[in-house]
Amino acid sequence: IQRVAVLTSGGDAPGMNAAIRAVVRTAAFEGLEVMGVRRGFSGLHRGELKLIGPRDMANTIQRGGTILLTARSATWRTPEGRARGAQHLRDNGVDGLIVIGGDGSFHGADLLQKEHGIPVIGVPGTIDNDLYGTDHTIGYFTAVETALDAVDKLRDTGASHERIFVIEVMGRHAGHIALDVAVAGGAEEVFIPEDDKPIEDVIEIVKDSVEKGKMGSIVIVAEGVPGGAQGVGDAIQAGTGLETRVSILGHIQRGGTPVSSDRILASRLGEAAVYALMDGVSGVMVGRHGGDIIHTPLHETWEKRKDVNRDLYRCAKKLSV
Amino acid sequence: IQRVAVLTSGGDAPGMNAAIRAVVRTAAFEGLEVMGVRRGFSGLHRGELKLIGPRDMANTIQRGGTILLTARSATWRTPEGRARGAQHLRDNGVDGLIVIGGDGSFHGADLLQKEHGIPVIGVPGTIDNDLYGTDHTIGYFTAVETALDAVDKLRDTGASHERIFVIEVMGRHAGHIALDVAVAGGAEEVFIPEDDKPIEDVIEIVKDSVEKGKMGSIVIVAEGVPGGAQGVGDAIQAGTGLETRVSILGHIQRGGTPVSSDRILASRLGEAAVYALMDGVSGVMVGRHGGDIIHTPLHETWEKRKDVNRDLYRCAKKLSV
Amino acid sequence: IQRVAVLTSGGDAPGMNAAIRAVVRTAAFEGLEVMGVRRGFSGLHRGELKLIGPRDMANTIQRGGTILLTARSATWRTPEGRARGAQHLRDNGVDGLIVIGGDGSFHGADLLQKEHGIPVIGVPGTIDNDLYGTDHTIGYFTAVETALDAVDKLRDTGASHERIFVIEVMGRHAGHIALDVAVAGGAEEVFIPEDDKPIEDVIEIVKDSVEKGKMGSIVIVAEGVPGGAQGVGDAIQAGTGLETRVSILGHIQRGGTPVSSDRILASRLGEAAVYALMDGVSGVMVGRHGGDIIHTPLHETWEKRKDVNRDLYRCAKKLSV
Amino acid sequence: IQRVAVLTSGGDAPGMNAAIRAVVRTAAFEGLEVMGVRRGFSGLHRGELKLIGPRDMANTIQRGGTILLTARSATWRTPEGRARGAQHLRDNGVDGLIVIGGDGSFHGADLLQKEHGIPVIGVPGTIDNDLYGTDHTIGYFTAVETALDAVDKLRDTGASHERIFVIEVMGRHAGHIALDVAVAGGAEEVFIPEDDKPIEDVIEIVKDSVEKGKMGSIVIVAEGVPGGAQGVGDAIQAGTGLETRVSILGHIQRGGTPVSSDRILASRLGEAAVYALMDGVSGVMVGRHGGDIIHTPLHETWEKRKDVNRDLYRCAKKLSV
Repeated sequence: IQRVAVLTSGGDAPGMNAAIRAVVRTAAFEGLEVMGVRRGFSGLHRGELKLIGPRDMANTIQRGGTILLTARSATWRTPEGRARGAQHLRDNGVDGLIVIGGDGSFHGADLLQKEHGIPVIGVPGTIDNDLYGTDHTIGYFTAVETALDAVDKLRDTGASHERIFVIEVMGRHAGHIALDVAVAGGAEEVFIPEDDKPIEDVIEIVKDSVEKGKMGSIVIVAEGVPGGAQGVGDAIQAGTGLETRVSILGHIQRGGTPVSSDRILASRLGEAAVYALMDGVSGVMVGRHGGDIIHTPLHETWEKRKDVNRDLYRCAKKLSV
Repeated sequence: IQRVAVLTSGGDAPGMNAAIRAVVRTAAFEGLEVMGVRRGFSGLHRGELKLIGPRDMANTIQRGGTILLTARSATWRTPEGRARGAQHLRDNGVDGLIVIGGDGSFHGADLLQKEHGIPVIGVPGTIDNDLYGTDHTIGYFTAVETALDAVDKLRDTGASHERIFVIEVMGRHAGHIALDVAVAGGAEEVFIPEDDKPIEDVIEIVKDSVEKGKMGSIVIVAEGVPGGAQGVGDAIQAGTGLETRVSILGHIQRGGTPVSSDRILASRLGEAAVYALMDGVSGVMVGRHGGDIIHTPLHETWEKRKDVNRDLYRCAKKLSV
Repeated sequence: IQRVAVLTSGGDAPGMNAAIRAVVRTAAFEGLEVMGVRRGFSGLHRGELKLIGPRDMANTIQRGGTILLTARSATWRTPEGRARGAQHLRDNGVDGLIVIGGDGSFHGADLLQKEHGIPVIGVPGTIDNDLYGTDHTIGYFTAVETALDAVDKLRDTGASHERIFVIEVMGRHAGHIALDVAVAGGAEEVFIPEDDKPIEDVIEIVKDSVEKGKMGSIVIVAEGVPGGAQGVGDAIQAGTGLETRVSILGHIQRGGTPVSSDRILASRLGEAAVYALMDGVSGVMVGRHGGDIIHTPLHETWEKRKDVNRDLYRCAKKLSV
Repeated sequence: IQRVAVLTSGGDAPGMNAAIRAVVRTAAFEGLEVMGVRRGFSGLHRGELKLIGPRDMANTIQRGGTILLTARSATWRTPEGRARGAQHLRDNGVDGLIVIGGDGSFHGADLLQKEHGIPVIGVPGTIDNDLYGTDHTIGYFTAVETALDAVDKLRDTGASHERIFVIEVMGRHAGHIALDVAVAGGAEEVFIPEDDKPIEDVIEIVKDSVEKGKMGSIVIVAEGVPGGAQGVGDAIQAGTGLETRVSILGHIQRGGTPVSSDRILASRLGEAAVYALMDGVSGVMVGRHGGDIIHTPLHETWEKRKDVNRDLYRCAKKLSV
């Protein structure tokens, strides 16, 4: 192969630029050219491709967001849209496409290769960490750090006012962020979509924690939990009679300078994606498991389920004693 | 005088601990004793006083929140409640009270001195910066920095998705935080309670900015603006047809390690409060204007209005060109 | 006037980009064109000028360093070098030059206007805050924050090991950073070039502080103090027999995302510089005093001395009690 | 068992408090008592033990340093010193000791159990990550993040001045920090103790990178490399004739609020240490490999060598292309 293309798709995640950089520089190191596609599949369908070289990636490893931009594409869901995208890739002499994104993006990539025979490799870029086939996704570590920083700040106020803070973190379908933040933030309780915890138990725990003399309590809720943080907060306030505040962290968890773990993961996976294409591999996501790079068929990344760390879940419980 | 008391009251603000530390250490330097009152006026009315010495303040200058805790007090609004608080101060041999807080707290302090002749000094501790008689209040600088950090993060996502972000920052009655954040965050627009800007103009500005090729727009809204960020966001989305996201930063703006400016201001004002009591002054707030320490009668701090910096307002406008 | 040029010169400072952005956008707002000069006077002498527009400044307000680059120029110190620079400005139709930098840069600017009649305006951009004619210089606030963050980290280690840490911060001729960091960092002692404190006194203070039960002591030293932190550290270790570590913070104080105060100051001063040129003013530095923009003849900025805040100096002493 | 003791020893590391908290709370959850030993083995030998309960650990998970203090102990290296320490443990009814620290500390622990039959468990707490038997050590992630943050700042200045920055990070015997920081910081080169790279090659690489148009180069050096950053910097400056600056990050890498990964690792390992003692295990270090908790005989932790990640090393090389 001589030329590969790369795009970012779906919600942006910190470290996407580090992944693009790794693709571009690994390719350059191996004598390949790289075309950057702007605005994800939406731009691909419109033919927004441009050659990018190693120097274009200077000073990007530390930047949040994605310099290639990202977008949702309704057109890509149509066979015609994908056909046009495939044509643009062929017209530009592209031998393979690297897609940095989450499960929706991988779905689009999978269709492209199945319908048009274009080699595709997925790179897991999403803060939610909800993809099977990799221990962690690019952006996850930074999102946890940002949420934790907010929890540390809220604890200052919570402790000073001896209040309960119910904090909603991202995670529509998965409690990975919530669980990490709960353990690292020293939370009293955590609600995740994977689990069905009766609110009554939590009310008892909060009451109990006040009696033990704790100044302020922190409860972490993943956004995918029915009712969200507001529902949990209302129930706690009603059940305990204690002053309860709700804080929804929202989009700040997506942005910011990526932490080292995300930059390193992105560097490794961007590199691995180029080598996968060079090795004639297609239709897989590159991931990291332990210290190893692994390949997982794209459809498994969304069909199989990555459970949260149950040991951590039990640990969280004990440490709030 | 031989013994002073200090309390924090109202919403917590970063730098309150630095102010308590300055009171305690300046007093120690001058040979006075200090009693810390826990839980503000609520605790004063219940007699929660305890001697604190210089060593108790070790490693507190960098901590958010308030180690003396804070609370709202319904009882303090009654003459009986205040009489009991005054009695506790007399029983403990306290010659003067230093109150770190905002206008509500100063009101409570003012009544204490008027009704019971107890010397009181106010120290401006509130993130909103809405007190007359000081250029800045303790906690303000940190709140601006926290909000700005969030804006920087949201800009990453906004630019990557080419979206409009409407961001609500604290400021129920005043646009100080909003204005600073708008200028420092490079926002396209800012809405503050002091100003009545037609939403139609803003819609034009946003449309215009998109046409000029700006990738993503940031609009800052102070929480005191009617409708808040949600109202502004809905109107912009409806008026422009562009994807608009709303982010309400909320309580994270209250917490966190105080920045240097807040620690320095708190150190100066805590020191000044002790000297004011030693000089026989009472019923004033200590503040900083330019490089000078000034005294303002407590009632003026809430009766007179501190306007936002109009030059900055005009500057914000130009720089979003 | 129709066209202005802008350059950054000397050591870089966080907020320089915000100042460039303010120059470019204010100019655009007023219908003027701006040429950016790369690599300071060195680039001016070689003719490295290029038109820059408002969109070129997107996403720069939060970046450290200077997108226009900076350099020292030996050639500029010769009349021939300056003549060539003046010629480049005239050839490009530039009606005035805005120089963002420190005293050395202003000296070069002053010669340019005196020898060639080119209108020049200085904007104070240096972390040291050692320019007469402005309360603060651009970059100063961020440098203090960076140094303070380091002090907070070193205090963790110092307290855990019950050690003395002697920390050197920037400030070759001025103790502004050192003094702010000492007060905000809760240091036991501070050494600044403006003051001649016998090391013996400090040894007594450190001994005394250990006897009072303080866990770990922090001593701040400005780099301009004879012997620097190493000299002070050696003397303390020898005089007290206590384990003493020296940490020289160095260049990290120059970089990083500018804090809000630097971005706001830079925005105001960049704006003011353009209006000064439009008003026919030349040979001055724009500065901020209190809330006002003031003009100071360039030569006064380095001839007159801005003293450190003596009240703060006394305050630092008391609060380490 | 009914009562365990815990101490921190050697250099402090961010996350040590989270580990202590996990020990104390897991023990409380299981109905055991915990005695905290102050000042490591030095304090143990002097009998500085005190009961600590779950509430004593409130608001400590986010703090750098160690609330139990740490120290080096010459006495512990003598059999008499260890005998006295063992006696204090027996006198206080302690059934097992948890030692949080590095290889030196584990050596001391190993002798205690061998000579006096006291069950001991090691918890890896050191920023260097140089212990065999765990993927990562507590404090490592935070140290990398702190160093990376400094590199990001220096890159601002380096790029603005088009300079070479040679940056020394911690790692006396191991290049783990250096390697992670090099990849995440986008460095041109990295020198680690595990590798013997001819300086001539690096000079060529730096020259080459300048010719390719890179603005500023970053070279990372682990402190254990002969000559350190200063030696490398001098050689580069001499060999390239380019302006080269050296920055030694030093002790700031030890302190600061621990990042989430360190807090989570510390929570898991503190918990695991208590269960190891309850299970009758002794003489091992608890570590984490992949997602699993593993036990490694103490002596193996310093006898066996944990190599740096060679894949990462190769990756660093390619991405600086």
